[in-house]
Amino acid sequence: MLKIIKKSKKSQARIGTLHTAHGVIQTPFFMPIATRGAVKGITSFEIEEKLKSEIILSNTYHLLLAPGMEILKKTRGLHDFMQWPKPILTDSGGFQVFSLGKLRKITEKGVKFKNPKDGKSHELTPENVIKYQNIIGSDIMMVLDECTEYPCSEKRAKESMEMSLRWAERCKKEHDKLKLKKTELGKRADKQLLFGIVQGSTFKDLRKECAERLVKIGFDGYALGGVSVGKGIHSGYQVLDWVFDNLPYNKPRYVMGMGTPKDIIEGVKRGVDMFDCVIPTREGRHGRLFTSPPGPLSLVRRRGGFYSTINITNAKFKKDFSAINKDSKIPELREYSKAYLYHLFKTNEVLGSRLASLNNLEFYLDLMKKIREEIKSGRL
Amino acid sequence: MLKIIKKSKKSQARIGTLHTAHGVIQTPFFMPIATRGAVKGITSFEIEEKLKSEIILSNTYHLLLAPGMEILKKTRGLHDFMQWPKPILTDSGGFQVFSLGKLRKITEKGVKFKNPKDGKSHELTPENVIKYQNIIGSDIMMVLDECTEYPCSEKRAKESMEMSLRWAERCKKEHDKLKLKKTELGKRADKQLLFGIVQGSTFKDLRKECAERLVKIGFDGYALGGVSVGKGIHSGYQVLDWVFDNLPYNKPRYVMGMGTPKDIIEGVKRGVDMFDCVIPTREGRHGRLFTSPPGPLSLVRRRGGFYSTINITNAKFKKDFSAINKDSKIPELREYSKAYLYHLFKTNEVLGSRLASLNNLEFYLDLMKKIREEIKSGRL
Repeated sequence: MLKIIKKSKKSQARIGTLHTAHGVIQTPFFMPIATRGAVKGITSFEIEEKLKSEIILSNTYHLLLAPGMEILKKTRGLHDFMQWPKPILTDSGGFQVFSLGKLRKITEKGVKFKNPKDGKSHELTPENVIKYQNIIGSDIMMVLDECTEYPCSEKRAKESMEMSLRWAERCKKEHDKLKLKKTELGKRADKQLLFGIVQGSTFKDLRKECAERLVKIGFDGYALGGVSVGKGIHSGYQVLDWVFDNLPYNKPRYVMGMGTPKDIIEGVKRGVDMFDCVIPTREGRHGRLFTSPPGPLSLVRRRGGFYSTINITNAKFKKDFSAINKDSKIPELREYSKAYLYHLFKTNEVLGSRLASLNNLEFYLDLMKKIREEIKSGRL
Repeated sequence: MLKIIKKSKKSQARIGTLHTAHGVIQTPFFMPIATRGAVKGITSFEIEEKLKSEIILSNTYHLLLAPGMEILKKTRGLHDFMQWPKPILTDSGGFQVFSLGKLRKITEKGVKFKNPKDGKSHELTPENVIKYQNIIGSDIMMVLDECTEYPCSEKRAKESMEMSLRWAERCKKEHDKLKLKKTELGKRADKQLLFGIVQGSTFKDLRKECAERLVKIGFDGYALGGVSVGKGIHSGYQVLDWVFDNLPYNKPRYVMGMGTPKDIIEGVKRGVDMFDCVIPTREGRHGRLFTSPPGPLSLVRRRGGFYSTINITNAKFKKDFSAINKDSKIPELREYSKAYLYHLFKTNEVLGSRLASLNNLEFYLDLMKKIREEIKSGRL
């Protein structure tokens, strides 16, 4: 449940708290990605104690393939398995399955696919993704949806949206059915939130209609899907305005897979509460580091670029003995030098990408904190 | 300088303290390997705080190639560069160069070689390996030696040993010369220990002669080289007895690159004070974990195998929700399950090898602690 604490007078931005089975999260927030139940090279203890993230994101599709539902059932869910005591959001895995190309087949019933690793057949249906997420113990579950390719025709987008809406309804029904069970999993289902996903590609009318019809079914929160497919967010940020007009104000809003630091600020201004993105860890592994001068966001933004990126493998860092980030709250990033990190990347030492990922996740989580402070003080 | 605190009545084992520029180390000890200035995936802070290692080992050859001596000079040595405040031993790099095969050429002057990565030419001479280790700031420097192939003829072993002895003498002279300099590096040289390396392959007379002649030159400690070349330690552990008879009792003894847990116990019983080996991190990366029941070593040994290894990628660990090591002092190893570690290895998550390396290094360092306790209480 979302409690809105303050609404900006300058924009659609708002701060609040999202209440889940594993704790309260301050909104707007960013979710580090633990696709397979692990954030690249970083322990759950570090995510909690060093990064102080209040939530992570995992993926039903990946968890179904490994460790599999049998294991997660035995260990009473992902929280216990990965030693993460705070909230978890899981994507249903639809997006990942659709990326499989020829290895998958979509019908009204759901998606059949083959594990690219061992060729074994699996199926995701609206019903079983809810069952799986119930076993995983996600605090926030996502419905199964079809994510259309980009660009796509209006006809294709409409047909796909209609199916996604039928699937959304089946997910809701399955969740309601689980809640009635007097088992452990039934009790758990009762506390799990379920989010609908707005599709409709680049078409205003479809997006609006999809939002309206999802609201009629009734979800605990609403996500925008398919806005990060292709090159960056398509149709600018308009799609957020189209959709948010048709969503209840007091429900959390999540834009899936978006984005860059700029995307996040633009999203927040339009009323987004939740973000996830692979950028911090993926770029970190390639030696790209996000940095930001200290101080409040508004001040930093007024001075020009409110953040910058450096490529640590650039020759100029070979002799740069300044800290990776002198303002970091993480001792490793304050005490190791850029020259050392350059050396780690040049010699393919895995410690390099671990440090870079820590740096980038801290940047993203810190950005969210600064954004919340800006809204609180009326500057955003 | 080695202070012997207690000598075993049962064997040649002894406990003591080795005093270096960066602190005192309890002997006998094991050195985690940071070849390029980083232990695989593990920060210096973790080596100090979680593993509580009192020393690490690095390599002159690798550090010469990257980051290079210019960088290490600017950052005032490896301690500062890798944020490691405790003692460092560096191998001279001879062993690594000899492994290069056609890419290197040995003459009386030294070894010329090409960097396999960029084809650039470099040279290691007895004089410059001392200069390099002075720049690195090693607490314990090793002489340049030639490590013969295994097996090799007595003639070949003798000729090679003669050259290694001439090189050892040149190293000693260079070190003495550096000590006289009134510069920062000169002052540093004064506190650096220099170890000779006993060669002579599998030949008793050569090994004994080499030890004797090194002692005449006079070093701060003595190492055995070339005993781990080929399949395990050759000629059993006899070579240790041959050599140690001819070494001064109150100087530290180091067997390079050896070994397995059994090698370490057998070595200690014959009077070895110092060990290094790639086994804990290399095996860790492949999912092989060392485990030992709790309790004093003698008790555990009496009951049979005093340690065991498990291959975490074995199917039986898929559903084993017991702790990676319930007796570990490292929270991650107590709180994550074997099933989770199995999952990390199966999905190629780098966190897996980080946890396995931590486990194995803790095992090795703990073994040394138990060995010291056994000697103290007169059981080894």
